[in-house]
Amino acid sequence: MGDATKKLLIIDTDPGVDDAMAIFAAFNSPEVDVIGLTTLFGNVKTSLATENALRLRELAGREDVPVIEGSSSTFAGVPNKRVADFVHGQDGFGNTHQPRPKGSKEEAMSAAEFIQQKVNQFPGRITILALASLTNVALALSLDETIGSKWAELVYLGGAFFRNGNVNPAAEANTLGDPEAADYVFALGNHIKVVGLDVTVGCQLTAADLDALDDGSPHGRFLHAISQTYHAFYAKHYGINGMCLHDPTAFVAVIAPEFFKWTEGSVRVSTEGITRGMTIMDAGFCNWVGPNAWSGRPRVQVALGVDETKVVQLIKGRICK
Amino acid sequence: MGDATKKLLIIDTDPGVDDAMAIFAAFNSPEVDVIGLTTLFGNVKTSLATENALRLRELAGREDVPVIEGSSSTFAGVPNKRVADFVHGQDGFGNTHQPRPKGSKEEAMSAAEFIQQKVNQFPGRITILALASLTNVALALSLDETIGSKWAELVYLGGAFFRNGNVNPAAEANTLGDPEAADYVFALGNHIKVVGLDVTVGCQLTAADLDALDDGSPHGRFLHAISQTYHAFYAKHYGINGMCLHDPTAFVAVIAPEFFKWTEGSVRVSTEGITRGMTIMDAGFCNWVGPNAWSGRPRVQVALGVDETKVVQLIKGRICK
Repeated sequence: MGDATKKLLIIDTDPGVDDAMAIFAAFNSPEVDVIGLTTLFGNVKTSLATENALRLRELAGREDVPVIEGSSSTFAGVPNKRVADFVHGQDGFGNTHQPRPKGSKEEAMSAAEFIQQKVNQFPGRITILALASLTNVALALSLDETIGSKWAELVYLGGAFFRNGNVNPAAEANTLGDPEAADYVFALGNHIKVVGLDVTVGCQLTAADLDALDDGSPHGRFLHAISQTYHAFYAKHYGINGMCLHDPTAFVAVIAPEFFKWTEGSVRVSTEGITRGMTIMDAGFCNWVGPNAWSGRPRVQVALGVDETKVVQLIKGRICK
Repeated sequence: MGDATKKLLIIDTDPGVDDAMAIFAAFNSPEVDVIGLTTLFGNVKTSLATENALRLRELAGREDVPVIEGSSSTFAGVPNKRVADFVHGQDGFGNTHQPRPKGSKEEAMSAAEFIQQKVNQFPGRITILALASLTNVALALSLDETIGSKWAELVYLGGAFFRNGNVNPAAEANTLGDPEAADYVFALGNHIKVVGLDVTVGCQLTAADLDALDDGSPHGRFLHAISQTYHAFYAKHYGINGMCLHDPTAFVAVIAPEFFKWTEGSVRVSTEGITRGMTIMDAGFCNWVGPNAWSGRPRVQVALGVDETKVVQLIKGRICK
């Protein structure tokens, strides 16, 4: 942890096609030092997320980075059942059936414990990039609420503020995966940036970009192969001939926040009814008459605008070595 | 009802400063024939809305237009308590303390009965302009569900789709006033246009416009006088030196829908938790994986864009004779 100019980065992840791209981009970025991959359900179940994270570090030649397994249940203790295998394939890697990884996860602690310990060990220096639901972060906060003021930054890929969700009109997948966790984190955490569908949907690789990924290297061939199912999903459901770079866009917010237009305000997550999983921010358009459910919460930075060209260009330069 | 080129218009209203402007604009518009004013709680309580509607028709010299009192309770039967007297004054007319009207409301029927009867009497010809909560319309539908396919159009001033509400970040006042009514109407009604905060907030009279209203005529002096409290509210809470023309903008959608950009999709209203009163539309950005709470509902036209200059110009030309 010697280079104080680098951000110490924990990536909480459910790999996942775009997770793979974000993680490779992070490994290739001099601005950050990836100190751990913590895993969670979402695109796949938690145990498979762990296996896939181990596979990714091996492919990148980064077996030095520990993989720490996270929760298999939501913050409220409900075992997770829903996974997005219809987007990422049953194996999370577009049904490419990768060989099993050689390395093993850390057995000594949970993801929440790892997050809590590292933030306390390096106060003000840890950035958490949360690419799945906020379960592990919420569990870490529930171990020690003070870490919400000690991390340098939490960058959360999730939510849909002034546009529809991607699971239903109200809810985005990561937030719907654990709404109670997200609402808890937004209640207690400071220095939070949220990168949601408002900006990530517009940051896309074209079909030609995807083809160009396969440069003959094992790394390039892997990224190209795992993206095919994902590409087909976006073609069918969004009419896009390419793919949305959700997770890599959130990584760009870590190293180049100036590419985004941030709006500050408190955020709530609905846990009830047809809006369960919906993120709603007070965007500061007016002064309210009296208090409401948003009053008194920490202010969060929400990305509502983005320079898509710059983001995509940076990602393309970083996902391949 | 002789002139078949005119829309037969029922205005459901809770006057209200901007209601007064919308009603005067309707009386002055050759495109419509106002066949009734039905009243509801909202800006004021229902009985005062009735009194104010009677006062408005008298000021306009339109005692021929019947005023029919609506419900004092929500669609679910809860007596209404909250009124927006902090916006419209305790009398609904900016605390100008108008003389009591000379005329009387219709005693023979309720607003819901009037709506149900008129739509059946003139199938395909009645436009309902709903400037308050959807309580009376929902009650009319509950008397006779078929009217939801027999009215020419329901234009509803309400909701906030891809921006914050005006009571709290989730909810707009008319929809929060009776979320159950709104969700019921969106489930059963066809030919619905929704004009919400997404477009109405940008349609404003400036302070200079407000001053110009007072042209020395009783009518102009009245509109100028009742707008002062409303103007002060917008200055304090929105930083606007003027006023938002919510209700008149919805009237413009009746006579000049081409000034708006309409997006079609099904609409739900949240009735639970922190999002109670929130309107969420499926804006058609993607094809969902499986059904959701929006599936199978009638498609609604929601105004998400507007030519503000044209709308304001039209309103200014219509609110004074």
